[in-house]
Amino acid sequence: MINEIYDVIVVGAGHAGCEAAAAAANLGSKTLLVTMNMQTIGQMSCNPAMGGIAKGQIVREIDAMGGYSGIIADKSAIQFKMLNLSKGPAMWSPRTQNDRMLFAQEWRLALENTPNLDFFQDMVKSLIIENDKVAGVITSLGIQIRGKSVVLTNGTFLNGLIHVGDKQLGGGRMGEPRAFGITEQLVSLGFEAGRMKTGTPPRVDGRSLDYSKMEEQKGDENPGKFSYLDSPKLEKQLSCHIVYTNETVHEILREGFDRSPMFNGTIQSIGPRYCPSIEDKINRFAERNRHQLFVEPEGWRTVEIYVNGFSSSLPEEVQIKAMKHIPGFENVKVFRPGYAIEYDYFPPTQLNHTLETKLIQNLYFAGQINGTTGYEEAAGQGLIAGINAHNKVHEKEEFTLNRDEAYIGVLIDDLITKGTEEPYRMFTSRAEYRLLLRQDNADIRLTEKSYNLGLAKLERLQKVQEKISKSIELEGFLKDTSLKPTIINPILETIESAPVDQAYRAAQILTRPNMTLEKLDEIDFIKTTTKNYSEEVREQAEINIKYRGYIEKEKENVAKLNRLETIKIPEDFDFSKIASLSTEARQKFVKIQPKTIAQASRISGVSPADINVLLIYLGR
Amino acid sequence: MINEIYDVIVVGAGHAGCEAAAAAANLGSKTLLVTMNMQTIGQMSCNPAMGGIAKGQIVREIDAMGGYSGIIADKSAIQFKMLNLSKGPAMWSPRTQNDRMLFAQEWRLALENTPNLDFFQDMVKSLIIENDKVAGVITSLGIQIRGKSVVLTNGTFLNGLIHVGDKQLGGGRMGEPRAFGITEQLVSLGFEAGRMKTGTPPRVDGRSLDYSKMEEQKGDENPGKFSYLDSPKLEKQLSCHIVYTNETVHEILREGFDRSPMFNGTIQSIGPRYCPSIEDKINRFAERNRHQLFVEPEGWRTVEIYVNGFSSSLPEEVQIKAMKHIPGFENVKVFRPGYAIEYDYFPPTQLNHTLETKLIQNLYFAGQINGTTGYEEAAGQGLIAGINAHNKVHEKEEFTLNRDEAYIGVLIDDLITKGTEEPYRMFTSRAEYRLLLRQDNADIRLTEKSYNLGLAKLERLQKVQEKISKSIELEGFLKDTSLKPTIINPILETIESAPVDQAYRAAQILTRPNMTLEKLDEIDFIKTTTKNYSEEVREQAEINIKYRGYIEKEKENVAKLNRLETIKIPEDFDFSKIASLSTEARQKFVKIQPKTIAQASRISGVSPADINVLLIYLGR
Repeated sequence: MINEIYDVIVVGAGHAGCEAAAAAANLGSKTLLVTMNMQTIGQMSCNPAMGGIAKGQIVREIDAMGGYSGIIADKSAIQFKMLNLSKGPAMWSPRTQNDRMLFAQEWRLALENTPNLDFFQDMVKSLIIENDKVAGVITSLGIQIRGKSVVLTNGTFLNGLIHVGDKQLGGGRMGEPRAFGITEQLVSLGFEAGRMKTGTPPRVDGRSLDYSKMEEQKGDENPGKFSYLDSPKLEKQLSCHIVYTNETVHEILREGFDRSPMFNGTIQSIGPRYCPSIEDKINRFAERNRHQLFVEPEGWRTVEIYVNGFSSSLPEEVQIKAMKHIPGFENVKVFRPGYAIEYDYFPPTQLNHTLETKLIQNLYFAGQINGTTGYEEAAGQGLIAGINAHNKVHEKEEFTLNRDEAYIGVLIDDLITKGTEEPYRMFTSRAEYRLLLRQDNADIRLTEKSYNLGLAKLERLQKVQEKISKSIELEGFLKDTSLKPTIINPILETIESAPVDQAYRAAQILTRPNMTLEKLDEIDFIKTTTKNYSEEVREQAEINIKYRGYIEKEKENVAKLNRLETIKIPEDFDFSKIASLSTEARQKFVKIQPKTIAQASRISGVSPADINVLLIYLGR
Repeated sequence: MINEIYDVIVVGAGHAGCEAAAAAANLGSKTLLVTMNMQTIGQMSCNPAMGGIAKGQIVREIDAMGGYSGIIADKSAIQFKMLNLSKGPAMWSPRTQNDRMLFAQEWRLALENTPNLDFFQDMVKSLIIENDKVAGVITSLGIQIRGKSVVLTNGTFLNGLIHVGDKQLGGGRMGEPRAFGITEQLVSLGFEAGRMKTGTPPRVDGRSLDYSKMEEQKGDENPGKFSYLDSPKLEKQLSCHIVYTNETVHEILREGFDRSPMFNGTIQSIGPRYCPSIEDKINRFAERNRHQLFVEPEGWRTVEIYVNGFSSSLPEEVQIKAMKHIPGFENVKVFRPGYAIEYDYFPPTQLNHTLETKLIQNLYFAGQINGTTGYEEAAGQGLIAGINAHNKVHEKEEFTLNRDEAYIGVLIDDLITKGTEEPYRMFTSRAEYRLLLRQDNADIRLTEKSYNLGLAKLERLQKVQEKISKSIELEGFLKDTSLKPTIINPILETIESAPVDQAYRAAQILTRPNMTLEKLDEIDFIKTTTKNYSEEVREQAEINIKYRGYIEKEKENVAKLNRLETIKIPEDFDFSKIASLSTEARQKFVKIQPKTIAQASRISGVSPADINVLLIYLGR
């Protein structure tokens, strides 16, 4: 029926699928996006927000690479906040609240405006596989679509099973059918599959809430944005509200524990540790008498509210009874209860760094199918899978990001090297070089790489190059400009910093705690120059000067460890024959097949002794 | 879980459900709208358009009553056309093309802004019934929600079965799960259920079409709108395009006939006669070598195209192969194939004029569940069911519309009196008083009734009253104004109408064929007055003057037949005992239980002789 032979077929149109399809198509691949429902492209299944700690950095990285998540989050934002501003710049994390409908709509329109990208609505129920290589998909209507590569991004849809109390419903999301067939086929081909679990809170009617009993949480006064491109900033914003649960709420929830699928054994699979259900929080932190909830609007014009923090699979009457004891929720009306959903995933140690499966060539996995949680983690994987699916088909080099280059690199390396037993979420703490992987410099880190790939457009590259050169210029000015004690001491006094008794360079003064470029701007002849630089350039120069020591040290560490990265392990290396390895290391090496000594060293359970054994075998 | 006892629970959030919920809530009933998916409220399942012949009149009627369909169609319109302008005003029919996403979005937002209206997302799988009276619903999660009345508007979802060639999929729409449980319960309670079938054409990628090979069809130069309220008119419009199938297309389609579920016996249920599939058209009209298709955009910004006229359940590869031979479709890319869907309906002779079921009190049916087809037919029924559900619960009078008052009246009377063996669609020919039931006077016909009900707002009533009084004023002016031959003859000449040799009243001149008020405006002292009247008032006065003879005659007919309407048949009248009735009439009377002689006379198979027998028994 569809005669076209696609270069890349992407299955699923959530965050991972959309980014994969956009990347492949923008690189020039004839790409097909297959989704069960074209009306739900780019659907936010859970919270109406993008970014946050470590996740905001990923969105910035996707944007720097020419992906769409940042642009779409900006276009549909109803609130922007830069989190962690009180900490060092490595921790600053942008986050938006989004209009759920608008987000999906903007994704669809963005994809429709992407050349080379076709759409097809149907459920994929199996893959065409020839000689251990994927060759297309077969849909529920029995339609065969040929493709040289396939990216699977099935989210929570594979054999999805929804739980509310003791009731279970098949479904990929509440109200949407599940998908089936792919897991069974892949298992028969030798893949290992498992089950994971996630959950979502109730959606309620904002008209039934009393906001006067809650604490308003406004967006930033001077809202930023995700995209490095010139796009308008938010002109108005909607507020969220903060409330807390209390002992009464907890007591009522506890009454439902015996009918909780989480506690009575119905759900065996593991949910996201850092996004637990309210019953999980009460259970694990029994000593805490309250938990924070965020009352988040679902969009500019809708009254629907997302009760962030109240994820639950308790019986619906328990959820609602308990909610009514939250301040402001006394008369709450529920649009739908929270629920848990179990779905199939494939332990990601079955993948290469390109997200291609080891067993079937040209087959890529991205998103929750790899055991991750989070829109941003999914989108980042989608981008990399889409790029590599394109490159493979066009016989180009593999594209991977290292751990010192991007959170996306950390994410994928963690997944394929360590695997994950529970839904994997990104944190700044997972990135050993987080001082380098900041939200402010994702463009500097990644745009040129992406431009060389053919993905990021020249416009992006030029913007970054200008940012870099202007930043160097401004740093030079600050390094060259001398400040006499009479000029700088009054300013130092305002930040309770010791006065100086001789002239210092502005850059030196800037390294002092609490000293900022904004402070230095109080000096007229400084401001005369600095005011000519954009906010982004000023931020970059300031960070580079203030944190130079730390950054240099981090770069040295990277260089040291990168020496291990360069020690490649041959593809056909037979770990099983090395008797002197510990049993655990030997088994894991056989399974994961690390490609470098550095990767081998990151596998959990592998000791320095095992690494030494390897080095000896490799003739080092 | 939900402690509220609702006055009205509406099941389903399509055109019927949305209007029912809005009406009940606006009348003051505590109303709950239950939908399987809150993201698909107000979804247009089939063509992205509202109105058309006879249907446009229904939308105007709904608007005149204070329903929402007209307002929402206006807000989401991408094109407006008044159809049949070359015919008399009784045939004029407004129609919009709509942005599918925007239409749904506007419906949801309108409902969210309706007081007294709550929402719940879940599938209703059974009704709570106590003493032959409905008392609420039970959802798939097992949630019991109490309600004093229930309106079922399940559309194509009840046991929905999708067909594409020889493949079948359960579903309520493509990509959405079906609903089950209600039919089985109702049948066990003694309801008769049947199956109907409908279909939808493929959706294609507008980027793959060559519009230069098609005929552009623009919207009206001076676009109208549905709503009688002051709302902005369309400022820009999108075009549709017209193309034709050809013998090659037909030949290819014929190749798939043996795998067509319509022809090979898989689908037994009957589809909409006047909205046939392309294979049906080819089969039934074998002599025709082409069929017209409308290439309709799905919205302002999307590239998706609806191929109106190409509805099909042939195997998808046949659909696509054939489409490629339509001019401009040579390189067509398909988003999803056309399909047929079978679903449960309940023969509507089981209902009263209020749309309440005869078997179960306070239970109302509206839309496709009654065997109708079309958004407008569904919405009109929803409105009436919503009003009556409210009135019943509040012990108010039944609200029905007569056949001389509204197309909605014709629709419901046809349904409950004659039943329907195939999806029922409205036509002007079904309305014997169509000269009275025009799109221009729905407000005059209905707004006061609705205001008295408490539904239409005072603003609407005042607008109508002003329209009526201004129209009478303008008619008076035209009746009083004398036109000398020297003044009027030059104008008569331009329309090739015989000159006059004495003065005539302007109103008399206006009754001539081809004479219009616009023409009379060429006379300065006429225009000086007429220009002060709005377009709507001018139109009303003109129609009243030009068609006065026909209208008066129609009104006499109504009066004559209404005498039969006033002859009521007692509720407990036992038709089975009247031996002198024909067997067919007796059986049908027993089943349908007509409430007036007029209704009895409209039942198919009932002869004037049967009516005479009845009249004798009633003592006339």
